[in-house]
Amino acid sequence: MKFSKKVQRCEQSPVRKFYPYEKAALDRGVHVRHLNIGQPDIPTPQPFFDAIRNFGKNVVEYAPAPGTEIFVEAVQGYYARLGCPIEKEDILTTFGGSEALEFVMECIADEGDEILSPEPFYPNYTSFVNITGAKIVPIPTTAEEGYRYASREKIEPLITERTRAILITNPGNPTGVVLTPEESRLLADIAREHNLFLVSDEVYREIVYAGKISTMLQYEDAAENVVVIDSVSKRFSSCGARVGMMVTRNRELIGQALKLCQGRLCAATLEQTGAAAMYNTLDESYYKSILEEYTRRRDAIVTALEKLPGVSFTQPEGAFYFMVTLPVDDTEKLQYFLLEEFTHNNETVMFAPGAGFYSDPAMGRNKARVAYVTAPEDLTRAVELLGLGIQAYNERKG
Amino acid sequence: MKFSKKVQRCEQSPVRKFYPYEKAALDRGVHVRHLNIGQPDIPTPQPFFDAIRNFGKNVVEYAPAPGTEIFVEAVQGYYARLGCPIEKEDILTTFGGSEALEFVMECIADEGDEILSPEPFYPNYTSFVNITGAKIVPIPTTAEEGYRYASREKIEPLITERTRAILITNPGNPTGVVLTPEESRLLADIAREHNLFLVSDEVYREIVYAGKISTMLQYEDAAENVVVIDSVSKRFSSCGARVGMMVTRNRELIGQALKLCQGRLCAATLEQTGAAAMYNTLDESYYKSILEEYTRRRDAIVTALEKLPGVSFTQPEGAFYFMVTLPVDDTEKLQYFLLEEFTHNNETVMFAPGAGFYSDPAMGRNKARVAYVTAPEDLTRAVELLGLGIQAYNERKG
Repeated sequence: MKFSKKVQRCEQSPVRKFYPYEKAALDRGVHVRHLNIGQPDIPTPQPFFDAIRNFGKNVVEYAPAPGTEIFVEAVQGYYARLGCPIEKEDILTTFGGSEALEFVMECIADEGDEILSPEPFYPNYTSFVNITGAKIVPIPTTAEEGYRYASREKIEPLITERTRAILITNPGNPTGVVLTPEESRLLADIAREHNLFLVSDEVYREIVYAGKISTMLQYEDAAENVVVIDSVSKRFSSCGARVGMMVTRNRELIGQALKLCQGRLCAATLEQTGAAAMYNTLDESYYKSILEEYTRRRDAIVTALEKLPGVSFTQPEGAFYFMVTLPVDDTEKLQYFLLEEFTHNNETVMFAPGAGFYSDPAMGRNKARVAYVTAPEDLTRAVELLGLGIQAYNERKG
Repeated sequence: MKFSKKVQRCEQSPVRKFYPYEKAALDRGVHVRHLNIGQPDIPTPQPFFDAIRNFGKNVVEYAPAPGTEIFVEAVQGYYARLGCPIEKEDILTTFGGSEALEFVMECIADEGDEILSPEPFYPNYTSFVNITGAKIVPIPTTAEEGYRYASREKIEPLITERTRAILITNPGNPTGVVLTPEESRLLADIAREHNLFLVSDEVYREIVYAGKISTMLQYEDAAENVVVIDSVSKRFSSCGARVGMMVTRNRELIGQALKLCQGRLCAATLEQTGAAAMYNTLDESYYKSILEEYTRRRDAIVTALEKLPGVSFTQPEGAFYFMVTLPVDDTEKLQYFLLEEFTHNNETVMFAPGAGFYSDPAMGRNKARVAYVTAPEDLTRAVELLGLGIQAYNERKG
């Protein structure tokens, strides 16, 4: 049987290929600590569960294709509190930020088109772009420059007549980079001047350690260019709820994407009810407490990593990931070694090898992405295991 | 800004374009009865709500990309009870049958490819196919032949080197046609002989008035060809739960589609828990009671329609829709008339004009799809309104 060229250009998740090895380790009774996954352990807020419990209808009916009224209004209220008033018609509710990304790419990209994205990038971006027949053109960054990408010198030479969009994550996954106001403004300018979409994945918006939250929606002169990808997954620690949204003032894009929303009928009804309740009841003190918790976690992992010889990284500014450079020949080999051959006090550790975040895997060979979504003491121990593992790996090789 | 050629070939839902006119009628205080929508009023079974209430974890985490273990095992058990044993690895959990259709098409169709589908067809099929760059090639049927399509004479002349699949709905939406065992066997044979996928959308599987339930998965010699689209939406009256699945023994297709599942991370966690509970606790008596209810509804609408002069249709065999031919020049114009100019005792009625179910809208001009998802007495009154409306419309025209 024949498969599409497009799906063949998509790849299995680079993180998930280690799962069988993890399972084997677990089956041997080894305790595996995780720096590899972005699943926070913070409880999903109670209003989510309460709203679903109190749903009050006896039929779980289709929701409207663009989202339930209560959820769309809740999102509108949230953006108003951010200082960014939008209309209800600027919002389409999707299955997580993922479906919003998928819809945007399907609306703007054809076979052979190009989407610029700073590298290293979130690996699933490749699927969303490749399945349209387009490809990601990486905006190269370096560890030495702290993975910063927002400059005319880096971006403008890459723009061709096939370029359709600049796709960014801000705050950054996997880099932890947060755009400065000047960098944000510049990206909006570049998009406007070159008639490109600026697809800004802002699902980690509130997790900015310097405290200054922003959104690309603020640039009204780039209203036709800016598309924001948003989600309740990270904001409210509810990844499995799969409630996301696409927000843009470009009404033609909304009209095109609405066709795709109608095609799949609607996003889940109950989950929208729960998500609306979180937006409507959680206030500044909730966001503040989450930021404080991630700050403690960041401080713990940074402090622990600074003790490891030969490990380097840039201070993370936002989200709950960053890239680290490790003193090994190949972080994938290191990961296999940690799962198959290494233990310390019957424990080992997982991270996300850097190769999966680069279009050319060779570029990520000495890098890893670490996620800090567990308690500070867990992170300290996980990094200790990483250090011991690197030492054992390099001694074995030597 | 430029949009993809693919999305521009997709269309807004042909049913939804009447919503503003419905709203205007409602705003005038008119009561609108519905023969247009497939949202059953049957309560979602209590086990769904109970399982979600008793979820028992305080974080709504990501589910595994192919589905939660409890849901996948529940589906496996359901198919075993159907007499069709499958492996867990044959199942991918999706956001409704819709996402399963989307993933299958993305896996098998490239720009210029062709998907055969009997016409009239479910309008959203067009979106799922067109967004890949492929197109639907209709297998023509006629009202006179009761919309039957499963014959070599109708299908084989349409097969070209660009044909990738035959896409069917069985039991049929919008036609109510149920394949005979011979017809099913023939479709599996054609798919096998021509090396095509047979994508069989069986979301209405249990609603067969002659009582004989089947699935294309029964043909083991066509195991590589058959892909079943399934969902809890209609089976358990839980359309808004958005829990569906793709089931196939073609492991290469599973592998390709799994990349897309991983790309969007997972389907909603809580809803899978609720759906699993319905599969695991509802027994034959549930399916029987639902079938009895739809039989009463079918009998009511058929009896009412048979009284209308000039209206013709084939007895519906399954699902809860069928096509009717109406004695008017244009069913879309009739629908606008019913919403804007007609009332009887301050009521009017909506149906789905036939044009939206044909690649060439002209072919559906004197046809309509009716859905019978409400109580028998409601259906009787809705059909009465339709008859009075047709009369008023034709007198006005004359």
